[in-house]
Amino acid sequence: MITFDDVQAAARRLDGVAHRTPVITSGALDEATGAGRVLLKAENLQRVGAFKFRGAYNAISTLKPEDRARGVATVSSGNHAQAVSLAARLHEIPAVILMPEDAPAGKLAATRGYGAEVVPFDRYGVVRDELLEQLVAERGLTPIHPYDNPYVMAGQGTVALELIEDAGPLDVLLVCLGGGGLLSGCATATAALSPDTRIIGVEPEAGDDFVRSLAAGERVAIEVPRTIADGQQTNMPGELTFPVIQQLVDEVITVSDAEIVTAMKLLFERAKVVAEPSGACAFAALLAGKVEANGLRVGVTISGGNVTAARFAELVA
Amino acid sequence: MITFDDVQAAARRLDGVAHRTPVITSGALDEATGAGRVLLKAENLQRVGAFKFRGAYNAISTLKPEDRARGVATVSSGNHAQAVSLAARLHEIPAVILMPEDAPAGKLAATRGYGAEVVPFDRYGVVRDELLEQLVAERGLTPIHPYDNPYVMAGQGTVALELIEDAGPLDVLLVCLGGGGLLSGCATATAALSPDTRIIGVEPEAGDDFVRSLAAGERVAIEVPRTIADGQQTNMPGELTFPVIQQLVDEVITVSDAEIVTAMKLLFERAKVVAEPSGACAFAALLAGKVEANGLRVGVTISGGNVTAARFAELVA
Repeated sequence: MITFDDVQAAARRLDGVAHRTPVITSGALDEATGAGRVLLKAENLQRVGAFKFRGAYNAISTLKPEDRARGVATVSSGNHAQAVSLAARLHEIPAVILMPEDAPAGKLAATRGYGAEVVPFDRYGVVRDELLEQLVAERGLTPIHPYDNPYVMAGQGTVALELIEDAGPLDVLLVCLGGGGLLSGCATATAALSPDTRIIGVEPEAGDDFVRSLAAGERVAIEVPRTIADGQQTNMPGELTFPVIQQLVDEVITVSDAEIVTAMKLLFERAKVVAEPSGACAFAALLAGKVEANGLRVGVTISGGNVTAARFAELVA
Repeated sequence: MITFDDVQAAARRLDGVAHRTPVITSGALDEATGAGRVLLKAENLQRVGAFKFRGAYNAISTLKPEDRARGVATVSSGNHAQAVSLAARLHEIPAVILMPEDAPAGKLAATRGYGAEVVPFDRYGVVRDELLEQLVAERGLTPIHPYDNPYVMAGQGTVALELIEDAGPLDVLLVCLGGGGLLSGCATATAALSPDTRIIGVEPEAGDDFVRSLAAGERVAIEVPRTIADGQQTNMPGELTFPVIQQLVDEVITVSDAEIVTAMKLLFERAKVVAEPSGACAFAALLAGKVEANGLRVGVTISGGNVTAARFAELVA
């Protein structure tokens, strides 16, 4: 289990490197959801366009010099790939990224743009963790797991740390949930700073591995989910993230792809917020009325904004 | 001429009422423009989705009680309409808004949504100022001009005041220019706070009334411009804004509709910023290479974000 100290240590390492992203409020969102105040933590405005930069940078910061020199590797559907690529460049070390060959073109290009070597793979044909192990062994690289790494989890926890520092205590916190890095870190920070907050994770309907695993009391694997929320296509809770979430999170709920698109459109039109499908997931749950929010102060992570204009146009058409 | 004291007084009236909008930075925008640092003042995140709220609220705040009681009126293509409507509601007074019948549907609906009475007119068939005079005389209302009002100008100046307070001195400031309310106010604040800043106004090619007027040394009227930048369809500089701009602004330049769309798309994809066409105008000039920005600290107003998802999709297609 990570501790609040780990999150605070991550915050010190990220100070002046990561953006302290704004908390965005909008009367229109309050009206649309019935919440007393919706407080969006705009991680779409983070470096690389998603919260993932925090965890990746924090993890690379703590590597031993000899490990840094050989470089890092990871496997990611997109935002973590860009995050490791940029964090490695800032540390002036090599990075090799395994990316699904059907990842959004913009994400593939951006990852290469930050300087990493990209190795594509078939998302539906291989076990991604095994592929990563093989690469790491062959090249002597240090793996930076997208979520099952205590430094990654602690780094992502600075999202909730900043949100609560800047906006004050929350009644409810809604967090986008894929592998559980963001949720486990945010739950750790929130339990320390705002212990009465109800903490809720939100995953896509097709990727309800956390809902099933929490019900079963153990980690359950599902089929690789097919959803527009390409940042949440993990098929099983993390080994390290799951116990944190079991202990600290009040509930995990799901949203449909259609609910995500409705949320993306409202965020665009009324809050001027660009959210990618996975980034709009937590807000989608609030907007769809799946959370008791009446008159409450509701923190919502907008976890990323990496969607092309063309893809956005296609989704909202 | 308004003074810096007027802008500071407006800032005090707006404190706790208007949003102090964030200054957004992005390595991708620096790379795309060659600027040392692009500093976006995100007025798309202002109440009503545009800077116009500042001026309208400031102007209504200073009305005498007897004038307030009878109500206010204005004529506007959209954002000022919403601004007056909301500012009037916050002061609990009536508002009547003359709006072009071809204004974006979302803007018409939002204006009514804030509680104002909307009176549509034919943008290309009447002189808008005469129409407003008639309405005001008939109903005993106080007109809140979209830009030719010293309190409106001073209110808009708080955009640059906040930008410089939050981001520090600028080498260049690029401001979207329609009637000149935002530019005259921002120039007044910038001249006081960051006197070495080069201040540049940006208007659509089809609406180059300021370029022509500055060249002529007097206010020149043009045809009502046909441009996607519906917030900048004024056809003549303001009587009060023009002398301020003549004295304090270094240059006024123009951008094409195509350059505006390219800017909207890049802002969306790389900065996660939703800008309406008029809101992207200043950044479009920077992106199109029309401003010497190499290595410089360039402040850019994103003046508004009121564009529907459908319209955005249509423009970037």
